[in-house]
Amino acid sequence: MIEKTEKIIMLKDFYGPLLTQKQQDALNLYYEDDWSLSEIADSMAISRQGVYDLLKRAEQALLDYEQRLCLLERFSLTREHLDKVIMLLNDIKSADRQKIEGALEIIRAIDDLI
Amino acid sequence: MIEKTEKIIMLKDFYGPLLTQKQQDALNLYYEDDWSLSEIADSMAISRQGVYDLLKRAEQALLDYEQRLCLLERFSLTREHLDKVIMLLNDIKSADRQKIEGALEIIRAIDDLI
Repeated sequence: MIEKTEKIIMLKDFYGPLLTQKQQDALNLYYEDDWSLSEIADSMAISRQGVYDLLKRAEQALLDYEQRLCLLERFSLTREHLDKVIMLLNDIKSADRQKIEGALEIIRAIDDLI
Repeated sequence: MIEKTEKIIMLKDFYGPLLTQKQQDALNLYYEDDWSLSEIADSMAISRQGVYDLLKRAEQALLDYEQRLCLLERFSLTREHLDKVIMLLNDIKSADRQKIEGALEIIRAIDDLI
């Protein structure tokens, strides 16, 4: 459950602006502010089932966008590369050409990725 | 004109998968393969005006996606940063801590950006 929540929140960060304002509001209240379906229903003056459907459609749209553009996947990978390059650079104490080349190789991989 | 063409091609690389197959096909034929509106019209069995409208709607969709997600802008900036960090790293001949710190600062900026 937590894993799914985290994924939806990350997808919302990437693709939120492509959703309707109502979808964004419902996702924010449910996933960020931890409101219940009933509380959101009261706030939006729609039925509990309506909120449920709204959230499901919004989540499905996010998953569909990710399937098409893979932004989350690409950025996760980019971040992994960046972490590695930072570790490498932090480790350079002298003119260690081999390490610098390693860092460069990763940076080129990032360049191909984005 | 060339500038607009390049921008549309770059936007198509980012957001193409969000367009309909027909829109993607028309954009590819017109911008990548340099077909005329009439040639595309013949190929798609629609009117020349129909192709024009199809292209206009596709281009507007691309611009709208960019306005919402700013992927092109963000990636252009990321690429600039990467170019700088590569130049910096290439320039390191010895244990030049200052340059390494400079590179790290840029990498952190990339990290904040993505």
